Amino acid sequence: MSVSPSDPSALAKGVLAGERRALARAITLIESTRPDHREAAEALMHDLLPHTGRSVRIGITGVPGAGKSTFIESFGLHVLAEGKRPAVLAVDPSSPRSGGSILGDKTRMEELSRDARAFIRPSPSGCTLGGVARRTREAMLVCEAAGFDVIVVETVGVGQSETAVADMVDMFLLVLVPGGGDELQGIKKGIVELADAIVVNKADGDLAKAAARAARDYKNALHLLAPSSPHWTVPVLTCSAMERSGIDDVWTMVAGYRDTMDKAGALAERRSAQAHAWMWSEVSETMLQALRDDPRVERLLPDMERAVAEGRMAPGAAARQLVETFRLPLARP
Amino acid sequence: MSVSPSDPSALAKGVLAGERRALARAITLIESTRPDHREAAEALMHDLLPHTGRSVRIGITGVPGAGKSTFIESFGLHVLAEGKRPAVLAVDPSSPRSGGSILGDKTRMEELSRDARAFIRPSPSGCTLGGVARRTREAMLVCEAAGFDVIVVETVGVGQSETAVADMVDMFLLVLVPGGGDELQGIKKGIVELADAIVVNKADGDLAKAAARAARDYKNALHLLAPSSPHWTVPVLTCSAMERSGIDDVWTMVAGYRDTMDKAGALAERRSAQAHAWMWSEVSETMLQALRDDPRVERLLPDMERAVAEGRMAPGAAARQLVETFRLPLARP
Repeated sequence: MSVSPSDPSALAKGVLAGERRALARAITLIESTRPDHREAAEALMHDLLPHTGRSVRIGITGVPGAGKSTFIESFGLHVLAEGKRPAVLAVDPSSPRSGGSILGDKTRMEELSRDARAFIRPSPSGCTLGGVARRTREAMLVCEAAGFDVIVVETVGVGQSETAVADMVDMFLLVLVPGGGDELQGIKKGIVELADAIVVNKADGDLAKAAARAARDYKNALHLLAPSSPHWTVPVLTCSAMERSGIDDVWTMVAGYRDTMDKAGALAERRSAQAHAWMWSEVSETMLQALRDDPRVERLLPDMERAVAEGRMAPGAAARQLVETFRLPLARP
Repeated sequence: MSVSPSDPSALAKGVLAGERRALARAITLIESTRPDHREAAEALMHDLLPHTGRSVRIGITGVPGAGKSTFIESFGLHVLAEGKRPAVLAVDPSSPRSGGSILGDKTRMEELSRDARAFIRPSPSGCTLGGVARRTREAMLVCEAAGFDVIVVETVGVGQSETAVADMVDMFLLVLVPGGGDELQGIKKGIVELADAIVVNKADGDLAKAAARAARDYKNALHLLAPSSPHWTVPVLTCSAMERSGIDDVWTMVAGYRDTMDKAGALAERRSAQAHAWMWSEVSETMLQALRDDPRVERLLPDMERAVAEGRMAPGAAARQLVETFRLPLARP
């Protein structure tokens, strides 16, 4: 896919007109790491910004084997049936690049990806979570400007990706399966408490009863955790993504959440706090990257990290030495 | 208290000899923000580092009204009775300074503070959590070098202080009271899942039965959360700090945890990962502080933060502009 960074304002017009080709090119531009592309991407974002904010942004995570993709496909198809347009983005810092698209993503949501009103975009390549997160945040805004009503950001649960996704969405949804807690061996600490809603999937056939029981257990357990927001009690729903049952309730719940939080002013507050935190995390990310890229730091770093990890050097002293090395003026020849 | 940064190695010798005055002066030196003091503090830490690591480091948090201070005092007195020496540090980024000591801290643990074998140190002053956390981490190591066997770090639950404390200790302990979950209104999301152990306090008199019930409920709920470590199942104990009952069980549990994690190699691994993360968080903290202190950034920042929070400016663009401003060479007169 070719990128034309030379005219970001034309690209912005295409995105706002709902041109699919422009949308794809805009996101490719955002994902580029070339400095001239970054400048064009910023000009693009500047043009699109006034047209963002009207969707509901949903982060989705789940234990391995929870049927997340099937759930997202069923949910996306239901959103379409409601006359609304879904976009699906993924955050997977480990995903390999294959010409800008991962075959798997399209095939695992076959029906949804065939619908011209939906949009599915695999995770951008990029070694750091920070990079992937930044581009996903921007892609989310581009999709909003392009007229999508529901943005789903899927996390694969690698590294700190759940926290990064929870920090960029309006609502963080945790997909579980009936399994009495054993399934949570695969999930990181703190994720259950991050959730704004829990959905127990696979409530079909032999598992239907177990799913209802799991939902009840989680409802009781959540009672003992800190509330997600003073305006919201975390609900636990069951559904079968495969049989496409219970998905309507999930949609009603999502729409109700957005409405409640919006009226309470909590949605605007959350988004504003997220934008503020995003700015600072990018500042921090950019500065750390510059430090890591400094050849003098690069020479020092491996020995120093080892000494710190082995307790031979105080972390504070190591940090000061790294920063001082970085801030020294470069020697002139 | 006067600080003598001129001879950190003499100070280190005093700390290692267990001189109380040297210990207090060493921590005061660490808490100082003067650049020459910082250099001396680093020399001190360098000398002490080989003598650290032998204690068990316990972080303690709890809901307001859980009786944390009474619990820490009872626990500390029990530790003394076991023939071990406790040190209590506090992390409170909001605490006001009053001559280097907060009166409240001493009076609320009166009996423990009167015992010459124990050491209680209030939170250092400092506006940022990062600053308070760094000094507490170093104070913890100083106490270890001075021969304390049990280091208790108390967090008051302001800002992100629980996470900071959980990231510096071997074991994170959550103190609750019987109350059917309502008490958790006062605690932040994710804290229950951070806990390596839960203690339900106030299991006395009329509340004894409710405490047992709360403990049972929490045990069930924890079953549905991610495990704290593959080597450890998070226990839920009851105690009465006021009546000093059940405290022995807490101590047995703490000692058992340290032993189990140590033998599994998980303690060394956790400490090494913490040291590594500490180094990077200090690098990040130092660089952000330098950026914030830059007069050119200071001029830009207020308008920019407002524009980002109000959605008028893209966070990515704002971040790039801040970093570029900071990295511009200063103009020559």
